[in-house]
Amino acid sequence: MRAVDLIQKKKEGKEHTKEEINFLVENYTNGNIEDYQMSAWLMAVCFQGLTDEETAYLTEAFVNSGDILDFSSISENVADKHSTGGVGDKVTLVLIPILATLGVYTAKLSGRGLGFTGGTIDKLESIPNFKVELTNEEFFKQIKDIKVAISGQSPNLTPADGKIYALRDVTATVDNKSLICASVVSKKIASGATSIVLDVKYGSGAFLKTPEKARELADLMVKTGKLLNRNIDVVISSMEQPLGKNVGNSLEVIESIEFLKGNYEQDLYEITLDISAKTLLNCKLAKTYEEGIEKSKKAIEDGSALNKFIELVKAQGGNTDIVNDYSLFALGKNKKEIKADKDGYIKKLVALDVAKSAKLLGAGRDKKTDPINYGAGISLNKKIGDFVKKDETIMTLYYDEITNSKLEDAILSAQNSFVIVDEKIEKPKLIY
Amino acid sequence: MRAVDLIQKKKEGKEHTKEEINFLVENYTNGNIEDYQMSAWLMAVCFQGLTDEETAYLTEAFVNSGDILDFSSISENVADKHSTGGVGDKVTLVLIPILATLGVYTAKLSGRGLGFTGGTIDKLESIPNFKVELTNEEFFKQIKDIKVAISGQSPNLTPADGKIYALRDVTATVDNKSLICASVVSKKIASGATSIVLDVKYGSGAFLKTPEKARELADLMVKTGKLLNRNIDVVISSMEQPLGKNVGNSLEVIESIEFLKGNYEQDLYEITLDISAKTLLNCKLAKTYEEGIEKSKKAIEDGSALNKFIELVKAQGGNTDIVNDYSLFALGKNKKEIKADKDGYIKKLVALDVAKSAKLLGAGRDKKTDPINYGAGISLNKKIGDFVKKDETIMTLYYDEITNSKLEDAILSAQNSFVIVDEKIEKPKLIY
Repeated sequence: MRAVDLIQKKKEGKEHTKEEINFLVENYTNGNIEDYQMSAWLMAVCFQGLTDEETAYLTEAFVNSGDILDFSSISENVADKHSTGGVGDKVTLVLIPILATLGVYTAKLSGRGLGFTGGTIDKLESIPNFKVELTNEEFFKQIKDIKVAISGQSPNLTPADGKIYALRDVTATVDNKSLICASVVSKKIASGATSIVLDVKYGSGAFLKTPEKARELADLMVKTGKLLNRNIDVVISSMEQPLGKNVGNSLEVIESIEFLKGNYEQDLYEITLDISAKTLLNCKLAKTYEEGIEKSKKAIEDGSALNKFIELVKAQGGNTDIVNDYSLFALGKNKKEIKADKDGYIKKLVALDVAKSAKLLGAGRDKKTDPINYGAGISLNKKIGDFVKKDETIMTLYYDEITNSKLEDAILSAQNSFVIVDEKIEKPKLIY
Repeated sequence: MRAVDLIQKKKEGKEHTKEEINFLVENYTNGNIEDYQMSAWLMAVCFQGLTDEETAYLTEAFVNSGDILDFSSISENVADKHSTGGVGDKVTLVLIPILATLGVYTAKLSGRGLGFTGGTIDKLESIPNFKVELTNEEFFKQIKDIKVAISGQSPNLTPADGKIYALRDVTATVDNKSLICASVVSKKIASGATSIVLDVKYGSGAFLKTPEKARELADLMVKTGKLLNRNIDVVISSMEQPLGKNVGNSLEVIESIEFLKGNYEQDLYEITLDISAKTLLNCKLAKTYEEGIEKSKKAIEDGSALNKFIELVKAQGGNTDIVNDYSLFALGKNKKEIKADKDGYIKKLVALDVAKSAKLLGAGRDKKTDPINYGAGISLNKKIGDFVKKDETIMTLYYDEITNSKLEDAILSAQNSFVIVDEKIEKPKLIY
């Protein structure tokens, strides 16, 4: 078998066998196939696509390229969730204590964030002393002990995907649904999850711009799960406006604690319960979706999810006093309130603009080595469909020392993120 | 400007500016753009194509990437021809003495052959003592003195194309007409030619399988010439059967000498005169195409082309006695005649099969460093449309020491190359 022949085959729109996909992935990972051949193949894939079977083979080849975590000695049901990325998305933070308290084992490996705001690991690091780098032993022990652990310390999972992802990024071959699917699903499978719920986002603040594109990717992910004998469920949700009310690391953890205390934004509540119910159903811990919803609601109402969160923070060395004293969080010393210039209804609240503003304030980073300001971010008082009076605060910017030009740009981006109109605006649907 | 953005642009089917094409070519040549980005761009080009203008920009960027020969101090009209490659194609050998004797300066830079049979330089090397590597000074002086020189010593012409061609070869991105056009035309322009005739071959023995594909490439080459202010003319010719009667290095030179003595195969005669007449017209050495044909015929009939050939051989140190004593050529010590198994007409004489047989006999090479057997090859007694009697020789294989299995394969390939049928078969049209 020769790489050039496989590139030609895909260029002609023909279907690869499992052996061919394995040959490509294995030999690329070990360096026998060059970057320039893989990038030509990836570009051919962008034009000709992969079939569902090819996508499953690719996913499996990614899984097999590195370590595969195995929690079968702990439980048959280990859950994971993944979001394709959104602004203000703190679902993981509130979901995993709910699941754990309801009996679902959740082994969460999470990365640092690149781009507008931090990743889940960055958010948790805003909790004083919270230890995000667990050894393999610590990770397994904690899951066994309290059913939940979260670590940024990635074992050698799906190195083939890592290498190919880096190549896709610089060769304009990112936006193919099969390549995205294989990348996301392989990582979850290699992480040892047997039940996976994927939150596929669409809208101006997401990678996929339309619900139809999100539907296509979601369908493919479910099919891939079927072909690889994993329970994969999906939720397709809008990322037109930020999720919840806060954007930024400390701010999002604070919002998560409030959520677990029962003070939640409706959109965050809706999607968290949906993913929770689907996971419980997958793991046979609920007989129906509705039962899953009810159990999840109760775990919030009776405080057991909050207690599980405290248990998680404690297990990973974090200061549990933060749950009742938010002043223990780093939070921007300076505030700037963005106010309405007239009475009316919020028509737009562009997630991407809010995210850009938060990043300018210091909440995000470009390179993994860049520092992040945990205290920087934006708290929204209003969302789409809300009525606002002239001079009422729509959002508050939190920041520390930043240059004037960055601050000006952040304010401009925040001001540009929303539109106020006279006519009444319906609250948008979150879940598609 | 970033390479990844230009890849994305072409992926989306958008048109590049001249600056963008220059950026890609310059930065790839100097190593600032990586192979993996260029190969992704090349694959995107294979799917989205290049416009005529983009093709011209690419051709020009290739030309400007290295040395450009300048013969303007010798003549305003320096001619060159190029064939996209065919079996038994010895047109260059007979054409350049005809042109030179009619007043056209011909500065021919030619490569060694890879694949089934040798290139023009390999063929000439079968003439004892013929020196194929001329220095720049020798090359220029000889052109000035006798109007014709041929050298395998390539100056640093179109290095960008060299680097990109090597990449295309291993990434399945060879078969795009714009990339082929830029590669061929840039080399001819950089070689200093002002008048260029391109012989675009189609058929089973050629790279392009149909006359329509050849027409497309030919049209693009003519347009590219116009956009870059060069006289480019084309001939589209069939490569269903080998050109002329001999395939193999010594054998083809012997056929060429016979040609110049007036003993020619009709197909080789036809295409040589066509290219010659077009060149004379381009160079204003004939007022009409018909006058060009007549002048060329006369140059053969009156022996002046043969004399020019002898002059060329002498100038480059070759033994001129070969013209009258073919025993001075290395020629395979062993012969195998392939005979007809019944009476009938030759219906097919597949160029590719004949070429494969010749290569197995030792006439070709895979790597530039492989040795070549100048004496190996095949001489055809019959061509498509010829009548043949049972047991009459259709072709003769010449070879020296080769393994039995290679010989068996060569004989099999030769036997498989033709089909004899009962009904009368028309001689095929050579020029489309």
